[in-house]
Amino acid sequence: MMKNIVTVGGGTGSYTILSGLKNLKDVSLTALVSMADDGGSTGVLRDELGVLPPGDVRQCLVALSEHSDIMRKLMNYRFENGGLGGHNFGNILLTALEKVTGDFAKGVEVASEIMKVRGKVVPITTSPAELSVLLSNGKVLDGENEIQGAALQEYGLEKIFYKNNVTLNPHARDAILNANVIILGPGNYYCSVIPNLIVSGFKEAIKKSKAKIIFPVNLTNKMEHTENWKVSDYVRDIEKYLGKKVDFILVNSEKPSEEQRNYYELEEGKGVLVHDDMEDPRVVKSHLLSNVIFKPQYDEQMKATRGFIRHDSEKFTQCVNKIIT
Amino acid sequence: MMKNIVTVGGGTGSYTILSGLKNLKDVSLTALVSMADDGGSTGVLRDELGVLPPGDVRQCLVALSEHSDIMRKLMNYRFENGGLGGHNFGNILLTALEKVTGDFAKGVEVASEIMKVRGKVVPITTSPAELSVLLSNGKVLDGENEIQGAALQEYGLEKIFYKNNVTLNPHARDAILNANVIILGPGNYYCSVIPNLIVSGFKEAIKKSKAKIIFPVNLTNKMEHTENWKVSDYVRDIEKYLGKKVDFILVNSEKPSEEQRNYYELEEGKGVLVHDDMEDPRVVKSHLLSNVIFKPQYDEQMKATRGFIRHDSEKFTQCVNKIIT
Repeated sequence: MMKNIVTVGGGTGSYTILSGLKNLKDVSLTALVSMADDGGSTGVLRDELGVLPPGDVRQCLVALSEHSDIMRKLMNYRFENGGLGGHNFGNILLTALEKVTGDFAKGVEVASEIMKVRGKVVPITTSPAELSVLLSNGKVLDGENEIQGAALQEYGLEKIFYKNNVTLNPHARDAILNANVIILGPGNYYCSVIPNLIVSGFKEAIKKSKAKIIFPVNLTNKMEHTENWKVSDYVRDIEKYLGKKVDFILVNSEKPSEEQRNYYELEEGKGVLVHDDMEDPRVVKSHLLSNVIFKPQYDEQMKATRGFIRHDSEKFTQCVNKIIT
Repeated sequence: MMKNIVTVGGGTGSYTILSGLKNLKDVSLTALVSMADDGGSTGVLRDELGVLPPGDVRQCLVALSEHSDIMRKLMNYRFENGGLGGHNFGNILLTALEKVTGDFAKGVEVASEIMKVRGKVVPITTSPAELSVLLSNGKVLDGENEIQGAALQEYGLEKIFYKNNVTLNPHARDAILNANVIILGPGNYYCSVIPNLIVSGFKEAIKKSKAKIIFPVNLTNKMEHTENWKVSDYVRDIEKYLGKKVDFILVNSEKPSEEQRNYYELEEGKGVLVHDDMEDPRVVKSHLLSNVIFKPQYDEQMKATRGFIRHDSEKFTQCVNKIIT
């Protein structure tokens, strides 16, 4: 029987798992994508042209595209010089489509058609989402870009919220209600995962939904965001936002190679691997690690060095497949 | 029997006739497009990113597209603000495709597929073409943008040429050799039509080709370029570049309305209509005028007020159809 799988996230994490999940048979995939991104090319387009953030949607479209390699290269192509410098072509496409159709979600549909996308990519909201964080000292951080590099643990994260009224896209709501399986993450916890959960209406939809919820715990902690978190910390925290228990907790049981670990620690410090401290029947342990070595590289757009311990999309997909069949 | 029709031009003139010709039955269309454009968005992309000029190709792709309206609007959509400001989306697409495929002509093929183009759009050359004009006083004008507004008649046009070695695209050569009918123009005479004819190898290909050559004489003269030209002047001049006689000379016999004429003369001065002075069996007179009133409008990209006496694509197509059947 056809199963409806819904992923919730944005950016690289979603890209990784969608690339694998799209190969599952008898599965209808819907990717719900955070709209809080305001960094890099995406941030510039939001500022200059007043559009919704295209970057994370672009990555999901590329992951689910069944078009030729050229088309996927095209979408990710980043211009190097001049006025276009720094922009990915796919971001420009989504921006132009929002302008031409007058509607970001409609634009994503047209882009999906052009890209021959298998499944659906659905923005979690079509409101302009301004993510904010209130720190314990009363200071407010505005925008994902500012939150991204902030010392949330040092100052204490009091609350993550939207300043404006950000409501669930009805198409996202339908996907949640019709889902058999919902996968929360993986991805940058406060900048890609949680921004979906705090959209007004999300919690209510999840409550109504009969879907099994799979929570793949991140492979690594993010400095000053989830530093020193154990598996139980992630589960406790996300269930607070969900108002509901998750059904499966995916935990990686594969050790990174020394080379991978060294590269990682070079930038992110020691002890970033998430310690598995839970004795719970919901925990599914599995080898989930990509053995591709990602050397530390500065990402112009993120203004940060990107993570290089990642999920393997094939292993992840097999693990999900075992759970759902 | 299937007929191969090849058009030679670039920009609005080609757009107009291709929009009509694509509806002919049993016709295979190939649009050969000038690569000399270096103004507006196209000029900026050439300068900043070192690509071949996308603007005229974009217009031909849109004319031949059988995709939805949204797709054609998308290609022509011009960004208003920020670093993307002034660029048409289609120009950005062609630029990115040239970068990704490493080959402008290949990029045009991919764009044709995306746009569901009926027929083929083929750049006349894949060399970076730097159009120049030598004036009688020895001065040289560089680039179409500079030639566009120059007083060629006042100073005397000695020669129009490429400074660099600009050779015929082999795909354009094949199209010419396999053509049953070749249509030269209409369009900006020195900036869209002639730049094709002076590409190295064009004359030789035309000489070899058994195609009937149709020459639709422009509806209006361009100030200081072809000012006061009569039909016979156009024919004499183009045959000089061709090294061969044309087979049919299409002349418009329809008078513009007073309103159309007034608008036109407001910007271009009096006496711009081309006087029909030829008694020649090759001349085909026909009503070819668009009755749509184009009000004078300043074109940001052209840095000029655009012509508003144009061919009607339907009338033009019917006239060509009578000749070829």
